[in-house]
Amino acid sequence: MSSADFGALKHPFVLRALEPSDYRKGYLKLLEQLTKVGEISEEEFTARVEETRHLGDLHHAVVIEDVERLAIVASATLLVELKFIRKCGKAGHIEDVVVDSTVRGQHLGQRIVDHLTELAKQLGCYKVILDCTEANVPFYEKCGFGLKERQMARYFS
Amino acid sequence: MSSADFGALKHPFVLRALEPSDYRKGYLKLLEQLTKVGEISEEEFTARVEETRHLGDLHHAVVIEDVERLAIVASATLLVELKFIRKCGKAGHIEDVVVDSTVRGQHLGQRIVDHLTELAKQLGCYKVILDCTEANVPFYEKCGFGLKERQMARYFS
Repeated sequence: MSSADFGALKHPFVLRALEPSDYRKGYLKLLEQLTKVGEISEEEFTARVEETRHLGDLHHAVVIEDVERLAIVASATLLVELKFIRKCGKAGHIEDVVVDSTVRGQHLGQRIVDHLTELAKQLGCYKVILDCTEANVPFYEKCGFGLKERQMARYFS
Repeated sequence: MSSADFGALKHPFVLRALEPSDYRKGYLKLLEQLTKVGEISEEEFTARVEETRHLGDLHHAVVIEDVERLAIVASATLLVELKFIRKCGKAGHIEDVVVDSTVRGQHLGQRIVDHLTELAKQLGCYKVILDCTEANVPFYEKCGFGLKERQMARYFS
């Protein structure tokens, strides 16, 4: 694990790595504000958390907990890609950024994106990238990101 | 490793997984047609290939070799991301697609993208995504992809 600073959020908010016990703190409910989540048992959730932990520094799922309500109110993930270009460089991918609708306007989204950006830098990434809707472009510009290419997708049914 | 079909390209082209010996078949020279590569020793290259192999089905770097010239003429990588959304689903990322300028117009790019798309499907991904320049949008539309979001990036010096 990296030594990136996990502190410095104002009470009652704490930024930390995702844990299996976050299943009971509304983590999946939070993700539903982002997209479809579906039924996931606590066992399946714990297994997936363990699976990502085995990836070590290549996968960092982080959350912000409201420690008074014991509720997860924000989360995002950093995926580190091993490349051959850029002297066998690494690229960070920020994925699934979500902030609970009840705590928006408190810069928690920016804090979590800044944290993962700093983590990517510490881990030796030469860049960090993400895909977002047109509406979220100004938010990520505030986080220091610039428009780059077009994202394309193909879905399987 | 998946059982995705690696065959069916016309002689002298063969589609297969990247190997350490591709260092001597011009793989890095090919990547230079995409972006900066920099100095990489054969030892560094071999180490990175081994590192990606340890990721098993989460990382597939594939190449097309011209077996008459013993030269790598196309390559691309599929990265598989472990998510929590979509019932602990998986998302495929296609990265670093490149076709040597001397063999363009023979649909090798489409073959390699189709191959990685099919591989993502076989591995249980619910979608496959990629980022590309505006100029390459029509090519990926031919490969069955549709425009989705905006890509944003932050580079570290």
